[in-house]
Amino acid sequence: MNTTTCKGYLAGGISAGIKKKAGLDLGIIFSLVPASTVGVFTKNSIKAAPVLLDQQRLPSETSRALIVNSGNANCCNGGQGMEAAISMTDAAAEVLGVPRESVLAASTGVIGVPMPTDKICSAVPALVKNLSPQGFPVLAQTIMTTDTFPKLAGVSDSIEGREFSVIGVAKGSGMIHPNMATMLCFVCTDLGLPLAMLAETLTICTNQTFNRISVDGDTSTNDTILLMANRASGIAVSSLAQQKVFQQALFQVLERLADMVVKDGEGATKKVRIMVNGAVSDSAARTIADSIAGSALVKTALFGEDANWGRVMMAIGKTDVPVQPDKIDLFFDKVQMVSHGCGCGHDAEKMASAVLKKPEFNMCIELNQGTGTAEVLTCDLSYDYVKINADYRS
Amino acid sequence: MNTTTCKGYLAGGISAGIKKKAGLDLGIIFSLVPASTVGVFTKNSIKAAPVLLDQQRLPSETSRALIVNSGNANCCNGGQGMEAAISMTDAAAEVLGVPRESVLAASTGVIGVPMPTDKICSAVPALVKNLSPQGFPVLAQTIMTTDTFPKLAGVSDSIEGREFSVIGVAKGSGMIHPNMATMLCFVCTDLGLPLAMLAETLTICTNQTFNRISVDGDTSTNDTILLMANRASGIAVSSLAQQKVFQQALFQVLERLADMVVKDGEGATKKVRIMVNGAVSDSAARTIADSIAGSALVKTALFGEDANWGRVMMAIGKTDVPVQPDKIDLFFDKVQMVSHGCGCGHDAEKMASAVLKKPEFNMCIELNQGTGTAEVLTCDLSYDYVKINADYRS
Repeated sequence: MNTTTCKGYLAGGISAGIKKKAGLDLGIIFSLVPASTVGVFTKNSIKAAPVLLDQQRLPSETSRALIVNSGNANCCNGGQGMEAAISMTDAAAEVLGVPRESVLAASTGVIGVPMPTDKICSAVPALVKNLSPQGFPVLAQTIMTTDTFPKLAGVSDSIEGREFSVIGVAKGSGMIHPNMATMLCFVCTDLGLPLAMLAETLTICTNQTFNRISVDGDTSTNDTILLMANRASGIAVSSLAQQKVFQQALFQVLERLADMVVKDGEGATKKVRIMVNGAVSDSAARTIADSIAGSALVKTALFGEDANWGRVMMAIGKTDVPVQPDKIDLFFDKVQMVSHGCGCGHDAEKMASAVLKKPEFNMCIELNQGTGTAEVLTCDLSYDYVKINADYRS
Repeated sequence: MNTTTCKGYLAGGISAGIKKKAGLDLGIIFSLVPASTVGVFTKNSIKAAPVLLDQQRLPSETSRALIVNSGNANCCNGGQGMEAAISMTDAAAEVLGVPRESVLAASTGVIGVPMPTDKICSAVPALVKNLSPQGFPVLAQTIMTTDTFPKLAGVSDSIEGREFSVIGVAKGSGMIHPNMATMLCFVCTDLGLPLAMLAETLTICTNQTFNRISVDGDTSTNDTILLMANRASGIAVSSLAQQKVFQQALFQVLERLADMVVKDGEGATKKVRIMVNGAVSDSAARTIADSIAGSALVKTALFGEDANWGRVMMAIGKTDVPVQPDKIDLFFDKVQMVSHGCGCGHDAEKMASAVLKKPEFNMCIELNQGTGTAEVLTCDLSYDYVKINADYRS
């Protein structure tokens, strides 16, 4: 069952004047009771200050809140950046009346612009005043940058007859590439879980969702997924069977959010699922799937609705994974384009052109070398991607 | 001294009706005497038929000719592809009256379309009739696909008072990424060199030129550099000192051609030299330079003339080479944008915007970790790149 609230959590967002253009840009999540919290962070070795701060404070069994701004990434700001990240969490802690260390931070926006710390801190009282159990949709709007729509997903399920919820918000939509998808994602559940189980479940579900999407092959400095579990439902997950129920709910939420991030990839007009089968290993399959998903030539052909499978073959061959060209089969949905490494001719191309016109389809590559498989979700590369990113700061 | 001819070589091109639109599409080089010939080929594991054929026939001390078509890549055509490649070399060998194995082949164009072998073979007599010592500029035009201008470079120098020449033609202009730049390049010299020395010199010069350019990070199935040395000048290079003179001439020719390929990168409006210094090793520096050169976000910012150094920092950090963020300095030409990992502020950005407006400039990254360096030449990512590649086959 879908939901837009989660027991024991309040959320909200306001405009603090951080963004150049007017709009919501300062958001908050508050747990009425201490929550076990874990995070997954960018693999980029240049990390934004809030990422470094959260990494110091997590995992924790006593997190209370998250404060997040859009319009400024708070990255490459040196010591001042860390001071700004601490200041915004301190301001929230003070107004909420919770310990400093129990507040987490996140930022998204332009890199290397000093943080307007005063604006943020003086907006915190109004932000807290705005907190509401119905505040998650506003929060989803608050964290948008070049996103064209807010991303919110929530599900309710039950464990031993008692209801629980998982709710999440996310933002994309450029610098999207594993590991991990460049984005912010905050997830709350009213279940209680031991920290180790919480972290394990988050890793599993992240690998199956956000680590399988690719918009442009770039990895942001600010990627953050935070997962809070406050036990407000009264349910303490302890058995493996119960963990699986939670995992399924978390997977659903993350999958919907990851899906929305790809659909809203900067300028994207197509969502394409790339499936590589028959590789010598899963990791070989993944390398090839990433190569296809990351190829500018493949992505511009998708935008042009051109069944240019030759470029897919190029992308299959260009990695250092050895492939046997004359064993490769390639399909756009059910239309076979390549058989044993050779094109299937004019009729196949004609049929494929109908597939290419669809907003969503599958590209399936059979390498016929082994049993390794991988799946990556990607989008096309359009004029608008260039426009959005050429004009981003102006 | 510049030259457009080379002793003992004839070249030319005609229209054989291979391209959809009318235009030159079948070219030839003929050496009046047997030439020592070596090649460098794509690292893509999916190779076009002419690449596979040339790899069988090279290195050789008795090559006589090269036949090349544009408009069809002759890749992913299975057994028919190899038959077509052999047929075109056979046709040339017959009309020229030289051994079959002494003729090489190259193709560029769309992948996976059957070769119009009949058209090609029946055009060979007219092609041979057209051969001329002044034919290299026509050949340069013949091999163009999305290239907007022909690429020809030739230099003359002397060894022990006797003149020799090196002349080359190349085509770009998408799928350009080391190793190696996606392209065809044919170079002729009238020097004589032992095969091993010829191969060594070509490798050195390729690494310093074509393996340092990047347009879109894609690696073609058809990349080929061929170097012929026919000794028509009467000079047989034997000493190391003589080899160095040849190397310098070859380097000049390849450098000019590589430079033209980047300048003519699909839709490119900027040519940017990325220099990474102070890395823990040359290969670490190269990984980072490639990451910057390959980043869609960096390249769209260049197109937008936006001094968005934050994206460069993102690209520096996203590889698996460990960097120390607070040691990084970054310059656009002489304007310092980043000092110790922090932005240099508003004035620096203002000064940088003048640099960004230039058609050519340098981006220099000082990692301050060691002595490793690397240099890569790249271009921006424009609307036209998307347009050219979305519409390529239509």
